[in-house]
Amino acid sequence: MELPHLTLVLGGARSGKSRHAEALIEALPSPWTYVATAQAYDDEMRERIAEHRARRPAGWETVDAPLDLAEAIAAQPVGRPILVDCLTLWLTNLILAERDVAAARAALVAACERVSAPIVLVGNEVGLGIVPENALARRFRDEAGRLHQALAARAASVVFMVAGLPMRVK
Amino acid sequence: MELPHLTLVLGGARSGKSRHAEALIEALPSPWTYVATAQAYDDEMRERIAEHRARRPAGWETVDAPLDLAEAIAAQPVGRPILVDCLTLWLTNLILAERDVAAARAALVAACERVSAPIVLVGNEVGLGIVPENALARRFRDEAGRLHQALAARAASVVFMVAGLPMRVK
Amino acid sequence: MELPHLTLVLGGARSGKSRHAEALIEALPSPWTYVATAQAYDDEMRERIAEHRARRPAGWETVDAPLDLAEAIAAQPVGRPILVDCLTLWLTNLILAERDVAAARAALVAACERVSAPIVLVGNEVGLGIVPENALARRFRDEAGRLHQALAARAASVVFMVAGLPMRVK
Repeated sequence: MELPHLTLVLGGARSGKSRHAEALIEALPSPWTYVATAQAYDDEMRERIAEHRARRPAGWETVDAPLDLAEAIAAQPVGRPILVDCLTLWLTNLILAERDVAAARAALVAACERVSAPIVLVGNEVGLGIVPENALARRFRDEAGRLHQALAARAASVVFMVAGLPMRVK
Repeated sequence: MELPHLTLVLGGARSGKSRHAEALIEALPSPWTYVATAQAYDDEMRERIAEHRARRPAGWETVDAPLDLAEAIAAQPVGRPILVDCLTLWLTNLILAERDVAAARAALVAACERVSAPIVLVGNEVGLGIVPENALARRFRDEAGRLHQALAARAASVVFMVAGLPMRVK
Repeated sequence: MELPHLTLVLGGARSGKSRHAEALIEALPSPWTYVATAQAYDDEMRERIAEHRARRPAGWETVDAPLDLAEAIAAQPVGRPILVDCLTLWLTNLILAERDVAAARAALVAACERVSAPIVLVGNEVGLGIVPENALARRFRDEAGRLHQALAARAASVVFMVAGLPMRVK
Protein backbone atom coordinates (compact mmCIF):
# COMPACT_ATOMS: atom_id res chain seq x y z
CA MET A 1 0.00 0.00 0.00
CA GLU A 2 1.41 3.31 -1.07
CA LEU A 3 1.35 6.32 1.23
CA PRO A 4 0.29 9.35 -0.81
CA HIS A 5 1.81 11.79 1.69
CA LEU A 6 5.29 10.15 1.71
CA THR A 7 8.18 11.39 -0.48
CA LEU A 8 11.74 10.03 -0.55
CA VAL A 9 14.56 12.24 -1.84
CA LEU A 10 17.74 10.28 -2.60
CA GLY A 11 21.03 11.40 -4.13
CA GLY A 12 24.77 11.69 -3.68
CA ALA A 13 26.84 14.19 -1.74
CA ARG A 14 26.11 17.81 -2.72
CA SER A 15 23.42 16.77 -5.16
CA GLY A 16 20.92 19.31 -3.83
CA LYS A 17 18.82 16.83 -1.84
CA SER A 18 18.17 19.06 1.17
CA ARG A 19 17.38 22.09 -0.92
CA HIS A 20 14.92 20.14 -3.06
CA ALA A 21 13.25 18.57 -0.03
CA GLU A 22 12.93 21.94 1.68
CA ALA A 23 11.36 23.43 -1.44
CA LEU A 24 8.78 20.61 -1.49
CA ILE A 25 7.76 21.38 2.09
CA GLU A 26 7.96 25.16 1.75
CA ALA A 27 5.40 24.99 -1.06
CA LEU A 28 2.89 24.04 1.69
CA PRO A 29 1.46 26.40 4.35
CA SER A 30 3.79 26.88 7.35
CA PRO A 31 4.63 26.06 10.10
CA TRP A 32 6.80 23.10 9.12
CA THR A 33 8.81 20.68 11.26
CA TYR A 34 12.44 20.08 10.45
CA VAL A 35 13.57 16.82 12.06
CA ALA A 36 17.35 17.04 12.26
CA THR A 37 19.20 13.77 12.81
CA ALA A 38 22.72 15.23 12.75
CA GLN A 39 24.98 14.94 15.76
CA ALA A 40 28.01 17.20 15.59
CA TYR A 41 30.98 14.93 16.28
CA ASP A 42 33.53 17.41 14.92
CA ASP A 43 34.00 20.91 13.48
CA GLU A 44 33.37 19.84 9.88
CA MET A 45 29.96 18.53 10.92
CA ARG A 46 29.15 21.57 13.08
CA GLU A 47 29.90 23.77 10.08
CA ARG A 48 27.59 21.76 7.81
CA ILE A 49 24.76 21.86 10.35
CA ALA A 50 25.14 25.63 10.79
CA GLU A 51 25.20 26.14 7.01
CA HIS A 52 21.99 24.11 6.59
CA ARG A 53 20.21 25.99 9.42
CA ALA A 54 21.24 29.40 8.15
CA ARG A 55 19.69 28.59 4.78
CA ARG A 56 16.24 27.81 6.18
CA PRO A 57 13.66 30.63 6.22
CA ALA A 58 11.27 31.46 9.08
CA GLY A 59 8.41 29.00 9.39
CA TRP A 60 10.63 26.05 10.30
CA GLU A 61 10.64 24.57 13.78
CA THR A 62 13.65 22.33 14.34
CA VAL A 63 13.41 19.10 16.34
CA ASP A 64 16.55 17.07 17.07
CA ALA A 65 16.18 13.32 16.69
CA PRO A 66 19.57 11.65 16.34
CA LEU A 67 18.16 8.26 17.40
CA ASP A 68 14.43 8.32 18.23
CA LEU A 69 13.16 9.33 14.81
CA ALA A 70 9.88 7.41 14.84
CA GLU A 71 8.98 8.98 18.20
CA ALA A 72 9.85 12.48 16.96
CA ILE A 73 7.61 12.03 13.93
CA ALA A 74 4.76 10.68 16.05
CA ALA A 75 5.04 13.68 18.42
CA GLN A 76 4.40 16.29 15.72
CA PRO A 77 1.13 18.27 15.64
CA VAL A 78 -1.48 16.65 13.38
CA GLY A 79 -1.32 17.86 9.80
CA ARG A 80 1.98 19.72 10.07
CA PRO A 81 4.37 18.99 7.16
CA ILE A 82 7.57 17.19 8.23
CA LEU A 83 11.04 17.07 6.71
CA VAL A 84 13.53 14.44 7.93
CA ASP A 85 17.14 15.36 7.09
CA CYS A 86 18.66 12.91 6.88
CA LEU A 87 18.22 9.16 7.04
CA THR A 88 21.91 8.57 6.50
CA LEU A 89 23.05 10.34 9.66
CA TRP A 90 20.24 8.69 11.61
CA LEU A 91 21.43 5.27 10.44
CA THR A 92 25.00 6.15 11.35
CA ASN A 93 23.85 7.17 14.83
CA LEU A 94 21.86 3.94 15.26
CA ILE A 95 24.84 1.79 14.28
CA LEU A 96 27.27 3.70 16.50
CA ALA A 97 24.82 3.44 19.42
CA GLU A 98 24.41 -0.31 18.70
CA ARG A 99 20.64 0.01 18.34
CA ASP A 100 18.57 -2.68 16.60
CA VAL A 101 18.51 -1.28 13.07
CA ALA A 102 15.79 -3.59 11.72
CA ALA A 103 13.47 -2.65 14.59
CA ALA A 104 14.19 1.06 14.16
CA ARG A 105 13.49 0.76 10.42
CA ALA A 106 10.15 -0.96 11.06
CA ALA A 107 9.23 1.70 13.65
CA LEU A 108 10.05 4.48 11.17
CA VAL A 109 7.89 2.92 8.45
CA ALA A 110 5.06 2.50 10.97
CA ALA A 111 5.41 6.15 12.09
CA CYS A 112 5.22 7.28 8.45
CA GLU A 113 2.05 5.24 8.04
CA ARG A 114 0.40 6.88 11.05
CA VAL A 115 0.97 10.52 10.12
CA SER A 116 -1.41 12.10 7.66
CA ALA A 117 0.66 15.21 6.96
CA PRO A 118 3.09 15.40 4.05
CA ILE A 119 6.45 13.91 5.07
CA VAL A 120 9.65 14.16 3.06
CA LEU A 121 12.65 11.97 3.93
CA VAL A 122 16.14 12.72 2.64
CA GLY A 123 18.78 9.98 2.19
CA ASN A 124 22.29 9.72 0.77
CA GLU A 125 22.81 7.13 -1.91
CA VAL A 126 26.11 5.51 -0.87
CA GLY A 127 26.12 2.19 -2.71
CA LEU A 128 27.40 3.15 -6.15
CA GLY A 129 31.15 3.09 -5.53
CA ILE A 130 33.70 0.31 -5.18
CA VAL A 131 32.98 -2.16 -2.33
CA PRO A 132 34.54 -0.57 0.77
CA GLU A 133 37.42 -2.45 2.42
CA ASN A 134 36.05 -1.51 5.83
CA ALA A 135 33.50 -4.03 7.20
CA LEU A 136 31.57 -1.32 9.07
CA ALA A 137 31.26 0.71 5.85
CA ARG A 138 29.95 -2.38 4.05
CA ARG A 139 27.40 -2.98 6.79
CA PHE A 140 26.40 0.67 6.68
CA ARG A 141 25.75 0.68 2.93
CA ASP A 142 23.79 -2.56 3.17
CA GLU A 143 21.60 -1.08 5.89
CA ALA A 144 21.18 2.16 3.94
CA GLY A 145 20.03 0.17 0.91
CA ARG A 146 17.53 -1.82 2.99
CA LEU A 147 16.18 1.35 4.61
CA HIS A 148 15.77 3.16 1.28
CA GLN A 149 14.05 0.13 -0.26
CA ALA A 150 11.62 -0.20 2.66
CA LEU A 151 10.66 3.48 2.41
CA ALA A 152 10.62 3.61 -1.40
CA ALA A 153 8.18 0.69 -1.46
CA ARG A 154 5.70 2.78 0.58
CA ALA A 155 6.40 6.25 -0.82
CA ALA A 156 4.12 7.70 -3.47
CA SER A 157 7.03 9.73 -4.81
CA VAL A 158 10.75 8.88 -5.01
CA VAL A 159 13.30 11.15 -6.68
CA PHE A 160 17.00 10.67 -7.42
CA MET A 161 18.91 13.96 -7.42
CA VAL A 162 21.62 14.65 -10.00
CA ALA A 163 23.45 18.01 -9.92
CA GLY A 164 20.58 19.70 -8.09
CA LEU A 165 17.91 18.34 -10.42
CA PRO A 166 15.33 15.68 -9.49
CA MET A 167 14.98 12.57 -11.65
CA ARG A 168 11.65 10.90 -11.00
CA VAL A 169 12.07 7.25 -9.94
CA LYS A 170 8.44 6.78 -8.87
CA MET B 1 21.96 -4.73 -33.70
CA GLU B 2 19.83 -4.97 -30.58
CA LEU B 3 18.99 -8.30 -29.02
CA PRO B 4 15.28 -8.26 -28.07
CA HIS B 5 15.72 -11.06 -25.52
CA LEU B 6 18.58 -9.35 -23.62
CA THR B 7 18.00 -7.27 -20.44
CA LEU B 8 20.66 -5.59 -18.30
CA VAL B 9 19.85 -4.73 -14.66
CA LEU B 10 22.37 -2.31 -13.14
CA GLY B 11 22.43 -0.64 -9.74
CA GLY B 12 24.33 -0.10 -6.53
CA ALA B 13 24.70 -2.30 -3.47
CA ARG B 14 21.33 -3.34 -1.98
CA SER B 15 19.40 -1.55 -4.68
CA GLY B 16 17.12 -4.53 -5.36
CA LYS B 17 18.85 -5.67 -8.57
CA SER B 18 18.61 -9.42 -7.95
CA ARG B 19 15.02 -9.26 -6.79
CA HIS B 20 13.99 -7.24 -9.84
CA ALA B 21 15.86 -9.54 -12.22
CA GLU B 22 14.30 -12.61 -10.62
CA ALA B 23 10.83 -11.11 -10.95
CA LEU B 24 11.44 -10.48 -14.67
CA ILE B 25 12.34 -14.14 -15.21
CA GLU B 26 9.67 -15.54 -12.88
CA ALA B 27 7.02 -13.80 -14.99
CA LEU B 28 7.90 -16.38 -17.69
CA PRO B 29 6.99 -20.11 -17.63
CA SER B 30 9.44 -22.21 -15.56
CA PRO B 31 11.89 -23.92 -15.44
CA TRP B 32 14.46 -21.13 -15.29
CA THR B 33 18.25 -21.26 -15.11
CA TYR B 34 20.03 -19.28 -12.42
CA VAL B 35 23.68 -18.83 -13.41
CA ALA B 36 25.52 -18.06 -10.17
CA THR B 37 28.95 -16.50 -10.51
CA ALA B 38 29.67 -16.16 -6.80
CA GLN B 39 32.61 -17.94 -5.22
CA ALA B 40 32.48 -18.01 -1.44
CA TYR B 41 35.86 -16.71 -0.32
CA ASP B 42 34.71 -15.99 3.23
CA ASP B 43 31.81 -16.25 5.67
CA GLU B 44 30.30 -12.91 4.68
CA MET B 45 30.06 -14.14 1.08
CA ARG B 46 28.73 -17.57 2.08
CA GLU B 47 25.99 -15.84 4.06
CA ARG B 48 24.99 -13.65 1.09
CA ILE B 49 24.89 -16.62 -1.28
CA ALA B 50 22.74 -18.62 1.15
CA GLU B 51 20.40 -15.65 1.66
CA HIS B 52 19.94 -15.26 -2.11
CA ARG B 53 19.31 -19.00 -2.62
CA ALA B 54 16.80 -19.21 0.21
CA ARG B 55 14.79 -16.43 -1.39
CA ARG B 56 14.35 -18.19 -4.74
CA PRO B 57 11.15 -20.24 -5.25
CA ALA B 58 10.95 -23.69 -6.87
CA GLY B 59 11.38 -23.61 -10.64
CA TRP B 60 14.98 -22.41 -10.51
CA GLU B 61 17.87 -24.67 -11.49
CA THR B 62 21.18 -23.26 -10.30
CA VAL B 63 24.33 -23.54 -12.42
CA ASP B 64 27.66 -22.35 -11.00
CA ALA B 65 29.86 -20.42 -13.42
CA PRO B 66 32.48 -18.42 -11.56
CA LEU B 67 34.66 -18.14 -14.69
CA ASP B 68 33.22 -19.89 -17.76
CA LEU B 69 30.08 -17.84 -18.09
CA ALA B 70 29.76 -17.91 -21.88
CA GLU B 71 30.04 -21.70 -21.86
CA ALA B 72 27.41 -22.03 -19.11
CA ILE B 73 24.98 -19.87 -21.09
CA ALA B 74 25.63 -21.84 -24.28
CA ALA B 75 25.00 -25.14 -22.44
CA GLN B 76 21.44 -24.24 -21.40
CA PRO B 77 18.41 -25.99 -22.96
CA VAL B 78 17.02 -24.06 -25.96
CA GLY B 79 14.35 -21.56 -24.97
CA ARG B 80 14.88 -21.70 -21.22
CA PRO B 81 15.01 -18.25 -19.54
CA ILE B 82 18.40 -17.44 -17.99
CA LEU B 83 19.39 -15.15 -15.14
CA VAL B 84 23.07 -14.27 -14.63
CA ASP B 85 23.77 -12.98 -11.11
CA CYS B 86 26.10 -11.26 -11.23
CA LEU B 87 28.54 -9.79 -13.75
CA THR B 88 30.49 -8.05 -11.01
CA LEU B 89 31.52 -11.21 -9.19
CA TRP B 90 32.31 -12.87 -12.51
CA LEU B 91 34.60 -9.99 -13.45
CA THR B 92 36.26 -10.17 -10.02
CA ASN B 93 36.86 -13.89 -10.52
CA LEU B 94 38.31 -13.31 -14.02
CA ILE B 95 40.74 -10.68 -12.76
CA LEU B 96 41.83 -12.75 -9.74
CA ALA B 97 42.34 -15.79 -12.03
CA GLU B 98 44.31 -13.58 -14.46
CA ARG B 99 42.03 -14.45 -17.37
CA ASP B 100 41.91 -12.34 -20.55
CA VAL B 101 39.03 -10.02 -19.65
CA ALA B 102 38.54 -8.58 -23.15
CA ALA B 103 38.29 -12.09 -24.64
CA ALA B 104 35.86 -13.21 -21.92
CA ARG B 105 33.73 -10.12 -22.53
CA ALA B 106 33.59 -10.80 -26.28
CA ALA B 107 32.70 -14.46 -25.62
CA LEU B 108 29.89 -13.41 -23.28
CA VAL B 109 28.41 -11.00 -25.83
CA ALA B 110 28.65 -13.73 -28.50
CA ALA B 111 26.92 -16.24 -26.18
CA CYS B 112 24.11 -13.75 -25.55
CA GLU B 113 23.70 -13.34 -29.31
CA ARG B 114 23.38 -17.08 -29.84
CA VAL B 115 20.68 -17.82 -27.26
CA SER B 116 17.11 -17.12 -28.23
CA ALA B 117 15.63 -17.38 -24.73
CA PRO B 118 15.16 -14.33 -22.51
CA ILE B 119 18.39 -13.59 -20.65
CA VAL B 120 18.73 -11.12 -17.79
CA LEU B 121 22.18 -10.01 -16.63
CA VAL B 122 22.72 -8.30 -13.26
CA GLY B 123 25.64 -5.94 -12.63
CA ASN B 124 26.80 -3.63 -9.84
CA GLU B 125 27.42 -0.03 -10.77
CA VAL B 126 30.71 0.75 -9.02
CA GLY B 127 32.00 3.83 -10.84
CA LEU B 128 30.13 6.65 -9.11
CA GLY B 129 32.36 7.19 -6.10
CA ILE B 130 35.70 8.89 -5.58
CA VAL B 131 38.57 7.42 -7.67
CA PRO B 132 39.91 4.51 -5.59
CA GLU B 133 43.51 4.78 -4.35
CA ASN B 134 44.02 1.08 -5.05
CA ALA B 135 45.21 0.35 -8.64
CA LEU B 136 43.40 -2.99 -8.77
CA ALA B 137 40.14 -1.31 -7.75
CA ARG B 138 40.64 1.27 -10.53
CA ARG B 139 41.26 -1.46 -13.07
CA PHE B 140 38.19 -3.32 -11.81
CA ARG B 141 35.87 -0.35 -12.19
CA ASP B 142 37.24 0.39 -15.66
CA GLU B 143 36.59 -3.21 -16.74
CA ALA B 144 33.12 -3.16 -15.16
CA GLY B 145 32.31 -0.02 -17.12
CA ARG B 146 33.53 -1.55 -20.38
CA LEU B 147 31.56 -4.74 -19.76
CA HIS B 148 28.34 -2.88 -18.95
CA GLN B 149 28.73 -0.66 -22.02
CA ALA B 150 29.30 -3.65 -24.33
CA LEU B 151 26.18 -5.39 -23.01
CA ALA B 152 24.03 -2.26 -22.83
CA ALA B 153 24.78 -1.55 -26.49
CA ARG B 154 23.22 -4.91 -27.42
CA ALA B 155 20.44 -5.11 -24.82
CA ALA B 156 16.89 -4.18 -25.76
CA SER B 157 16.24 -3.18 -22.16
CA VAL B 158 18.56 -1.58 -19.58
CA VAL B 159 17.38 -0.52 -16.14
CA PHE B 160 19.16 1.35 -13.34
CA MET B 161 17.86 0.38 -9.91
CA VAL B 162 17.34 2.99 -7.20
CA ALA B 163 16.00 1.89 -3.79
CA GLY B 164 14.41 -1.23 -5.25
CA LEU B 165 12.77 0.63 -8.12
CA PRO B 166 13.80 0.36 -11.79
CA MET B 167 14.59 3.50 -13.78
CA ARG B 168 14.42 2.79 -17.49
CA VAL B 169 17.69 3.69 -19.24
CA LYS B 170 16.79 1.98 -22.54
CA MET C 1 18.07 31.95 -17.04
CA GLU C 2 18.85 28.86 -19.07
CA LEU C 3 21.54 28.84 -21.71
CA PRO C 4 20.17 26.98 -24.76
CA HIS C 5 23.67 26.23 -26.09
CA LEU C 6 24.95 24.65 -22.85
CA THR C 7 24.94 20.88 -22.25
CA LEU C 8 26.26 19.03 -19.18
CA VAL C 9 27.21 15.35 -19.49
CA LEU C 10 27.62 13.64 -16.10
CA GLY C 11 28.34 10.02 -15.24
CA GLY C 12 30.62 7.59 -13.49
CA ALA C 13 33.95 6.12 -14.53
CA ARG C 14 33.80 4.41 -17.94
CA SER C 15 30.17 5.33 -18.42
CA GLY C 16 30.73 6.61 -21.97
CA LYS C 17 30.62 10.33 -21.06
CA SER C 18 33.39 11.46 -23.42
CA ARG C 19 32.13 9.41 -26.33
CA HIS C 20 28.60 10.76 -25.90
CA ALA C 21 29.84 14.36 -25.60
CA GLU C 22 32.02 13.97 -28.68
CA ALA C 23 29.10 12.60 -30.67
CA LEU C 24 26.97 15.62 -29.67
CA ILE C 25 29.63 18.01 -31.00
CA GLU C 26 30.50 15.93 -34.07
CA ALA C 27 26.88 16.16 -35.20
CA LEU C 28 27.63 19.87 -35.83
CA PRO C 29 29.76 21.28 -38.70
CA SER C 30 33.53 21.18 -37.96
CA PRO C 31 35.99 22.53 -36.91
CA TRP C 32 35.42 21.86 -33.23
CA THR C 33 37.50 22.82 -30.19
CA TYR C 34 38.46 20.15 -27.69
CA VAL C 35 39.43 21.80 -24.40
CA ALA C 36 41.54 19.22 -22.56
CA THR C 37 41.98 19.78 -18.84
CA ALA C 38 44.10 16.67 -18.18
CA GLN C 39 47.61 16.97 -16.83
CA ALA C 40 49.62 13.78 -17.11
CA TYR C 41 51.01 13.19 -13.62
CA ASP C 42 51.85 9.54 -14.30
CA ASP C 43 51.88 6.78 -16.93
CA GLU C 44 48.32 5.65 -16.23
CA MET C 45 47.13 9.19 -17.00
CA ARG C 46 49.35 9.55 -20.08
CA GLU C 47 47.86 6.33 -21.41
CA ARG C 48 44.29 7.53 -20.86
CA ILE C 49 45.00 10.85 -22.58
CA ALA C 50 46.61 9.12 -25.57
CA GLU C 51 43.68 6.69 -25.81
CA HIS C 52 41.17 9.55 -25.83
CA ARG C 53 43.14 11.52 -28.48
CA ALA C 54 43.56 8.52 -30.77
CA ARG C 55 39.80 8.05 -30.80
CA ARG C 56 39.02 11.57 -32.03
CA PRO C 57 38.55 12.05 -35.79
CA ALA C 58 39.96 14.94 -37.88
CA GLY C 59 38.09 18.19 -37.34
CA TRP C 60 39.13 18.55 -33.70
CA GLU C 61 41.57 21.21 -32.57
CA THR C 62 42.89 20.50 -29.08
CA VAL C 63 43.50 23.29 -26.58
CA ASP C 64 45.09 22.49 -23.20
CA ALA C 65 43.57 24.26 -20.22
CA PRO C 66 44.49 22.51 -16.98
CA LEU C 67 43.70 25.64 -14.93
CA ASP C 68 42.55 28.62 -17.00
CA LEU C 69 39.41 27.08 -18.40
CA ALA C 70 37.26 30.23 -18.56
CA GLU C 71 40.02 32.03 -20.49
CA ALA C 72 40.41 29.11 -22.93
CA ILE C 73 36.67 29.12 -23.64
CA ALA C 74 36.62 32.89 -24.12
CA ALA C 75 39.55 32.66 -26.58
CA GLN C 76 37.74 30.37 -29.02
CA PRO C 77 36.60 31.66 -32.46
CA VAL C 78 33.00 32.90 -32.41
CA GLY C 79 30.48 30.19 -33.22
CA ARG C 80 32.85 27.25 -32.99
CA PRO C 81 31.45 24.28 -30.98
CA ILE C 82 33.41 23.55 -27.79
CA LEU C 83 33.86 20.38 -25.77
CA VAL C 84 35.35 20.58 -22.26
CA ASP C 85 36.70 17.21 -21.06
CA CYS C 86 36.61 17.18 -18.18
CA LEU C 87 35.47 19.30 -15.24
CA THR C 88 36.70 16.75 -12.75
CA LEU C 89 40.36 16.95 -13.76
CA TRP C 90 40.10 20.73 -13.94
CA LEU C 91 38.77 20.84 -10.38
CA THR C 92 41.54 18.50 -9.23
CA ASN C 93 44.12 20.80 -10.84
CA LEU C 94 42.58 23.88 -9.19
CA ILE C 95 42.64 22.30 -5.75
CA LEU C 96 46.21 21.01 -6.13
CA ALA C 97 47.32 24.46 -7.35
CA GLU C 98 45.49 26.06 -4.40
CA ARG C 99 43.41 28.29 -6.66
CA ASP C 100 40.20 29.95 -5.45
CA VAL C 101 37.67 27.33 -6.52
CA ALA C 102 34.56 29.48 -5.99
CA ALA C 103 36.03 32.27 -8.14
CA ALA C 104 37.07 29.82 -10.86
CA ARG C 105 33.57 28.32 -10.84
CA ALA C 106 31.96 31.75 -11.22
CA ALA C 107 34.36 32.62 -14.05
CA LEU C 108 33.51 29.38 -15.85
CA VAL C 109 29.77 30.01 -15.59
CA ALA C 110 30.32 33.57 -16.86
CA ALA C 111 32.42 32.30 -19.80
CA CYS C 112 29.66 29.83 -20.71
CA GLU C 113 27.16 32.70 -20.67
CA ARG C 114 29.29 34.78 -23.06
CA VAL C 115 29.83 32.17 -25.79
CA SER C 116 27.06 31.69 -28.31
CA ALA C 117 28.38 28.44 -29.80
CA PRO C 118 27.26 25.05 -28.53
CA ILE C 119 29.34 24.03 -25.51
CA VAL C 120 29.34 20.59 -23.93
CA LEU C 121 30.93 20.06 -20.50
CA VAL C 122 31.83 16.59 -19.21
CA GLY C 123 32.01 15.79 -15.49
CA ASN C 124 32.49 12.70 -13.32
CA GLU C 125 29.83 12.00 -10.74
CA VAL C 126 31.86 11.10 -7.64
CA GLY C 127 29.42 11.60 -4.78
CA LEU C 128 27.50 8.30 -4.77
CA GLY C 129 29.86 6.14 -2.73
CA ILE C 130 30.63 5.86 0.96
CA VAL C 131 31.91 9.11 2.56
CA PRO C 132 35.70 9.07 1.93
CA GLU C 133 37.94 8.90 5.02
CA ASN C 134 40.34 11.34 3.36
CA ALA C 135 39.50 15.02 4.05
CA LEU C 136 40.84 16.15 0.66
CA ALA C 137 38.62 13.62 -1.11
CA ARG C 138 35.61 14.90 0.88
CA ARG C 139 36.44 18.48 -0.10
CA PHE C 140 36.87 17.41 -3.71
CA ARG C 141 33.48 15.72 -3.91
CA ASP C 142 31.78 18.69 -2.24
CA GLU C 143 33.34 21.06 -4.77
CA ALA C 144 32.45 18.73 -7.66
CA GLY C 145 28.84 18.72 -6.49
CA ARG C 146 28.74 22.52 -6.22
CA LEU C 147 30.28 22.90 -9.68
CA HIS C 148 27.85 20.47 -11.30
CA GLN C 149 24.89 22.16 -9.60
CA ALA C 150 25.98 25.63 -10.75
CA LEU C 151 26.33 24.44 -14.35
CA ALA C 152 23.22 22.24 -14.35
CA ALA C 153 21.14 25.22 -13.20
CA ARG C 154 22.17 27.12 -16.36
CA ALA C 155 22.33 24.24 -18.86
CA ALA C 156 19.43 23.62 -21.21
CA SER C 157 20.35 19.95 -21.31
CA VAL C 158 21.78 17.68 -18.59
CA VAL C 159 22.32 13.95 -19.07
CA PHE C 160 23.43 11.24 -16.64
CA MET C 161 25.29 8.43 -18.41
CA VAL C 162 24.69 4.79 -17.44
CA ALA C 163 26.60 2.04 -19.30
CA GLY C 164 27.16 4.25 -22.32
CA LEU C 165 23.54 5.38 -22.51
CA PRO C 166 22.27 8.89 -21.68
CA MET C 167 19.45 9.35 -19.17
CA ARG C 168 17.87 12.76 -19.56
CA VAL C 169 17.92 14.74 -16.31
CA LYS C 170 16.88 18.05 -17.90
